[in-house]
Amino acid sequence: MNNYLAEFIGTFVLVLCVCGTAVMNAAYPNLGVGFLGVALAAGLAVLVMAYAVGHISGGHFNPAVTIGLWAGGRFSAKEITPYIISQVIGATVAGGVLYLIASGQTDFNLAGGFASTGYGEHSPGGYSMAAAFICELVFTAIFLFVIMSVTDKKAATQFAPLAIGLCLVIIHLAAIPVSNASVNPARSTGVALYAGGWALAELWLFWLAPIAGGVIGALAYRVVNSTQSMEEMAETNVPT
Amino acid sequence: MNNYLAEFIGTFVLVLCVCGTAVMNAAYPNLGVGFLGVALAAGLAVLVMAYAVGHISGGHFNPAVTIGLWAGGRFSAKEITPYIISQVIGATVAGGVLYLIASGQTDFNLAGGFASTGYGEHSPGGYSMAAAFICELVFTAIFLFVIMSVTDKKAATQFAPLAIGLCLVIIHLAAIPVSNASVNPARSTGVALYAGGWALAELWLFWLAPIAGGVIGALAYRVVNSTQSMEEMAETNVPT
Amino acid sequence: MNNYLAEFIGTFVLVLCVCGTAVMNAAYPNLGVGFLGVALAAGLAVLVMAYAVGHISGGHFNPAVTIGLWAGGRFSAKEITPYIISQVIGATVAGGVLYLIASGQTDFNLAGGFASTGYGEHSPGGYSMAAAFICELVFTAIFLFVIMSVTDKKAATQFAPLAIGLCLVIIHLAAIPVSNASVNPARSTGVALYAGGWALAELWLFWLAPIAGGVIGALAYRVVNSTQSMEEMAETNVPT
Amino acid sequence: MNNYLAEFIGTFVLVLCVCGTAVMNAAYPNLGVGFLGVALAAGLAVLVMAYAVGHISGGHFNPAVTIGLWAGGRFSAKEITPYIISQVIGATVAGGVLYLIASGQTDFNLAGGFASTGYGEHSPGGYSMAAAFICELVFTAIFLFVIMSVTDKKAATQFAPLAIGLCLVIIHLAAIPVSNASVNPARSTGVALYAGGWALAELWLFWLAPIAGGVIGALAYRVVNSTQSMEEMAETNVPT
Repeated sequence: MNNYLAEFIGTFVLVLCVCGTAVMNAAYPNLGVGFLGVALAAGLAVLVMAYAVGHISGGHFNPAVTIGLWAGGRFSAKEITPYIISQVIGATVAGGVLYLIASGQTDFNLAGGFASTGYGEHSPGGYSMAAAFICELVFTAIFLFVIMSVTDKKAATQFAPLAIGLCLVIIHLAAIPVSNASVNPARSTGVALYAGGWALAELWLFWLAPIAGGVIGALAYRVVNSTQSMEEMAETNVPT
Repeated sequence: MNNYLAEFIGTFVLVLCVCGTAVMNAAYPNLGVGFLGVALAAGLAVLVMAYAVGHISGGHFNPAVTIGLWAGGRFSAKEITPYIISQVIGATVAGGVLYLIASGQTDFNLAGGFASTGYGEHSPGGYSMAAAFICELVFTAIFLFVIMSVTDKKAATQFAPLAIGLCLVIIHLAAIPVSNASVNPARSTGVALYAGGWALAELWLFWLAPIAGGVIGALAYRVVNSTQSMEEMAETNVPT
Repeated sequence: MNNYLAEFIGTFVLVLCVCGTAVMNAAYPNLGVGFLGVALAAGLAVLVMAYAVGHISGGHFNPAVTIGLWAGGRFSAKEITPYIISQVIGATVAGGVLYLIASGQTDFNLAGGFASTGYGEHSPGGYSMAAAFICELVFTAIFLFVIMSVTDKKAATQFAPLAIGLCLVIIHLAAIPVSNASVNPARSTGVALYAGGWALAELWLFWLAPIAGGVIGALAYRVVNSTQSMEEMAETNVPT
Repeated sequence: MNNYLAEFIGTFVLVLCVCGTAVMNAAYPNLGVGFLGVALAAGLAVLVMAYAVGHISGGHFNPAVTIGLWAGGRFSAKEITPYIISQVIGATVAGGVLYLIASGQTDFNLAGGFASTGYGEHSPGGYSMAAAFICELVFTAIFLFVIMSVTDKKAATQFAPLAIGLCLVIIHLAAIPVSNASVNPARSTGVALYAGGWALAELWLFWLAPIAGGVIGALAYRVVNSTQSMEEMAETNVPT
């Protein structure tokens, strides 16, 4: 049970901080933190929560990570559903708390999108659906490749949360203008449920592309790794 | 005695850097660091001082942390009062030194608020009292949950100051526009004493909400943790 | 084989994130991340990928690093060519993926330079060819000196990827206005192939200067280090 | 000898990156990195070079650090002069290389101050001489207190370069508008020699205040520490 609680809390913190920064601070006149602040909020939230509850649940906070790690042979199939449910509930509660706080400002309204992810005319920079799909696919693949490798026993795993969090920073730096940067179906869902309309209608892409990308990234690591293992095996098999 | 000195110095550095950045640099024309700079100043100050004096005093620098850790079973009740006194004195001396430096600029005046925390018309973004209360409560709860977990023996505790400091960065990224982001009664007090007026009148919220939030966050960690401990116990008790 | 794959993927991620941030986000109206975002993207990408695949390939992602490490006595001559080929292919594929995404915006065109590196009228700040050459030479020398030293057995090598990545951040902070900051021939090539024209014509400098600088930096470390070794030897030889 | 070389190179990198960012990038139209970029350049340069050559020379790069560590009982008196000479030469060579690069822009001139530190009308924000003096004194005291404590055997010393570098970030975030943030006489000297005029005339403050502050900070740590040691001694002396 405690690993589901950990996924719930981790995803709650991630979505509250990322979307809170995007909704309340990014476009604040003159002093606002812009997309750089949103990118840092996303990455540092994962960094922090992975150090906090990584030893309890593994620190996924993201259905694409959960499914990707399963594809990579690192996670049990029967745990996928409860993990994803915990993540989506955590993200949705975060959306609710954010709504409670953000609506305390008199000129707040949901028409601004509530930090929802979208494509075409709802992409921040007006990028097409195809561009958003490729973007989410490729960057989630990178994310899972990095997660698989830095948590490998051969790596300096104490630094894994640092590397994973900062990986999310660089992904957001490149991807926010394209799709508002999800690479995380729970994060997209947690605010789309409140924004409704186009945000819900375009949600499919932010489940499909990150999950497909996550699987690809995890499998890519297995290829690199199995190449390595075969080479090591070959060396070991050399008669002495 | 040396732990009180450490709390005094740590809180002094934290308040001088955060409020110094907010008062002197955030709104500097063209080159100013904005809310992103303030968020980084807050988080990195705690990161640095926790590495510096964490081994002496535990590195609280914040009455909500001290009380939260007591609620979480990690801190002695009889040390609460001297810790909080040390923190408030440190914050107040920092406010004085900042006043000394900042008033060296001819167009300085305290009417700008001196980085005080407030709500309603004194919230940077005009957020209501209720929004500010929820904001301080929820984010301090997150802060204490993270502190409890990353300093747990099961975690990679050498990285605890890093995670705690960066947690404060993400909290500030989301919360500055709402309440100017305190999550720390000493920090609010240290500048409100100089600003006077509304800053003092609204100070109650910045003691009540962070302390309540801190207690909730620490207890939430105990729930997650006791769930885990019970499960471990159950596993251990399985007859072999 | 797996080390070539690692260099391919690492350089792919680096170029996609750095040039993606530069092309799509840096100049985004009001919310864009500016040169600070590009500098962070560059450095954090190397930090992340060095933690991810450093244990497989050493984590070069840069022909100037590969040649510099050879000059410093840390890398085998016969591996130079396959490493550089892997890096250039990774960078070129990244340029292609970036083109695919970025061209999903209706007002995209390659005339903006596609984050290519240049000098004279193609330097962001209008710096001369000589200034760009010195800049690339000196900063790549610094980069290789740092890489050589933080990966030395005497250093805290678990922190090497952190130090190397953050070194690239400070290099970019100073050098972007001069040459758009390459210090990496693969990164320059990966986008110049798409931009064509002046970007290709000026590419020679972004191979020559970083490689020359990398060799100088690596040799500088050997000087410092051999001085140290000789002193240690002298101390050891003192008759007791 | 190799420790002097290390101090030379470390100070060279620090000054080139900090002042390079300040001169060439901070005020770049629209995309410039502002004071936040300068603060990060300063702190990350020290972080990187402390990981790089800290095991050779201790990683001072700053006469106020060298003298402060001597006052704190951590550095030999007879090494002070060669260390400071190495640092000042490194800073001055950095100023020269920066001049070489920066003057490659047609509208460059030294009248902009060349990132020199000053007070009164030469303070970025127009702060008085007294304000600049207090600012340099207090922040260098904080800097030395942190250096003394994070390099103490009781602390997690592998993180010392991280904490020291990030301490310089927060110092710069607060202090740049006041005095352009030196806390380092070598850094001030390295560019003032080229800027001449007021920069040289005001240089005395940027030697006197940081050195006085550094001594105070180091002694403050000894007080905290001796309190601790006495308490430990008292505990040890309790008859059993």
